[in-house]
Amino acid sequence: MSSQQLLVPPPAVLRQPLAVPDRLLLGPGPSNVPPRILAAGGRQLIGHLHKEMFQIMDEIKLGIQYAFQTQNPLTLAISGPGHCAMEAALLNAVEAGEVVLMAVNGIWGERATDISKRLGMADVHQLVKLPGEYFVLKEIEEVSAACIRARTLGLDCSSQALARTAWVTAASWDIRRYKCLLLVDSVASLGGAPILMDQQGIDILYSGSQKVLNAPPGSAPISFSERARKKIFSRRTKPPSFFLDMGWLANYWGCDDKPRMYHHTAPINSFFSLREGLAILAEQGLENSWKLHKENSLYLCAGLQQLGLQLFVKEQEVRLPTITTFVLPEGYDWKEVTAFIMNKHAIEISGGLGPSAGKVLRIGLMGYNSTKFNVDRVLHALKDALQHCHKNKL
Amino acid sequence: MSSQQLLVPPPAVLRQPLAVPDRLLLGPGPSNVPPRILAAGGRQLIGHLHKEMFQIMDEIKLGIQYAFQTQNPLTLAISGPGHCAMEAALLNAVEAGEVVLMAVNGIWGERATDISKRLGMADVHQLVKLPGEYFVLKEIEEVSAACIRARTLGLDCSSQALARTAWVTAASWDIRRYKCLLLVDSVASLGGAPILMDQQGIDILYSGSQKVLNAPPGSAPISFSERARKKIFSRRTKPPSFFLDMGWLANYWGCDDKPRMYHHTAPINSFFSLREGLAILAEQGLENSWKLHKENSLYLCAGLQQLGLQLFVKEQEVRLPTITTFVLPEGYDWKEVTAFIMNKHAIEISGGLGPSAGKVLRIGLMGYNSTKFNVDRVLHALKDALQHCHKNKL
Repeated sequence: MSSQQLLVPPPAVLRQPLAVPDRLLLGPGPSNVPPRILAAGGRQLIGHLHKEMFQIMDEIKLGIQYAFQTQNPLTLAISGPGHCAMEAALLNAVEAGEVVLMAVNGIWGERATDISKRLGMADVHQLVKLPGEYFVLKEIEEVSAACIRARTLGLDCSSQALARTAWVTAASWDIRRYKCLLLVDSVASLGGAPILMDQQGIDILYSGSQKVLNAPPGSAPISFSERARKKIFSRRTKPPSFFLDMGWLANYWGCDDKPRMYHHTAPINSFFSLREGLAILAEQGLENSWKLHKENSLYLCAGLQQLGLQLFVKEQEVRLPTITTFVLPEGYDWKEVTAFIMNKHAIEISGGLGPSAGKVLRIGLMGYNSTKFNVDRVLHALKDALQHCHKNKL
Repeated sequence: MSSQQLLVPPPAVLRQPLAVPDRLLLGPGPSNVPPRILAAGGRQLIGHLHKEMFQIMDEIKLGIQYAFQTQNPLTLAISGPGHCAMEAALLNAVEAGEVVLMAVNGIWGERATDISKRLGMADVHQLVKLPGEYFVLKEIEEVSAACIRARTLGLDCSSQALARTAWVTAASWDIRRYKCLLLVDSVASLGGAPILMDQQGIDILYSGSQKVLNAPPGSAPISFSERARKKIFSRRTKPPSFFLDMGWLANYWGCDDKPRMYHHTAPINSFFSLREGLAILAEQGLENSWKLHKENSLYLCAGLQQLGLQLFVKEQEVRLPTITTFVLPEGYDWKEVTAFIMNKHAIEISGGLGPSAGKVLRIGLMGYNSTKFNVDRVLHALKDALQHCHKNKL
């Protein structure tokens, strides 16, 4: 190959420096990363099989057990974003041909349905709520009836309307009469609203690194109850992914009795960052974190109402304290409003997603970003946008 | 939930600072990350849908096209490590029931076989070589005969013995008579040895971020030829993963004509780092990078032979210049040798993997780590280990 000629020249744009503007990230995530976590992510690497790395992974495991309030031994971080954890949960827990029940009240339930169908499960039943609505306790009866055949019930705690904790608990104990596992998505809620995996009887719980935990996206905590573990480890078939095979991952994370083996090259710096995000949450304490998110969320809601804006989820007690959704008033285009706030105020806020697209705007206050100062900044920017972006403005 | 009690206390170990020792990483990867790339990875985030992020992704795409020497529009980075790219390649390109041919001369071929089988393909044919051996041109005939039915031929260019470039090229043109795609793994070779995707007629090529590109693990370049793209986009069934579905990824990376849509939360800092790794390679130039890796590899090989050690791959021209494999001499235990070098000299070198486990040691010299100074350091450490670790030492 000494005579090869390069036909593709080096791209000129790579001669320019990497350009990353400063932004206050008050969308639904990622949130801004505090200096301590940025510093951890910028540290020099060690190997993915070094004993110091295993120690850091053990610390991450403990941190997740605290954040999830669980003692499940099968607790670890997936080497990918929250979507990857959703896929890991489903493709390990569910086998082709099984019945899956999905409580859908937003894009996450829709995507989990899509993923389940791809796994060769023809029989995915959806319980659908309109955006802003939520499931209530009496619907458990419907769920339970269906659960006689279902092996997995998926529930999304990351929607604008948080499933009531009591509901989750009741559902979990109700479906325990059957062979059904309760799977809960807490990507946007973990650390911002109470979730107590063991006490609520959740079988599979996962989250992301880039919301309240304030680490960059790229790793995702996940945990499996003993019931879920047993189902996974007595599958008839291999899961349809090697990368996300929980047998291999459990071993790499020291969750079984065998010596740890090479599985894949872990995102080492992402794990450094996640460890620090979990350490900050542990230092702060879950109760303080829940309290902080609730207070700043209430402060934001009051400010939005003072601007004459209508909250999308009426009842305060089911409102997600990490992401606040409000109705886009008549005469405004959501893209124009968010672009104005981004360009003039260097703040990200976001439109709706999936079923709520075009109808709402979303403001995230997560972890490090959940401060009264940031609420004041975004309210100021929003007021400015409401004055400048109306269709009939002169 | 105002009465909930936390049953899992904050773990004490998370009160300790994050402990990361300094190491010279001369294993098979990850390699040490140069300051410019560490700094990029430690920068504050922007959103995964901001236009500046799309710009950075466009720059990454150009950088990959240069590194791969391709003009394929369907070129992007997977949001996961190299294993994830391997899975993305297979699960998009292959449909259940198809025949796959896998040229196996190491653990990668074995894993690709495993992944293919999980996809519901009963019919995975292996062409197996012993560790240190390699495929030669005359074997194309065997391959070709089998290709009459096969739709994908997988080839590993990351083994100790690099498939000869001429062989790859010949194979690709040979199988073009059939409907078979040529898939090549270049995780450990990209940037260190010549690979010219378009000129060699490779249909699917992927690599990792953490080898010659010197970014942390967590993103993986991949590219598909027009033939591969057509096959992927005319599948009868959806790929068995939403996270790795090339239809969604192509859109998010601006590889189709539609407006870019949210698919998953990209590992933003990993993309910052990958962009810088590709920029450094573009500034240096591929030919210079190949030359550097070859020179330092030859310098290392000479030094190993001076220590009386035997190279695992006899013929210099097929030896991978990024990872040098040598035979573990009689009287030594590989774990003792690598532990001694790690503990006393703070240098990582590695044992064999898969079929070569226990028989060989491996030294990686990749990108930033490929220097004569590092070769001198590791030879010094190895000499020391050979003196101290012999079973019959007094």
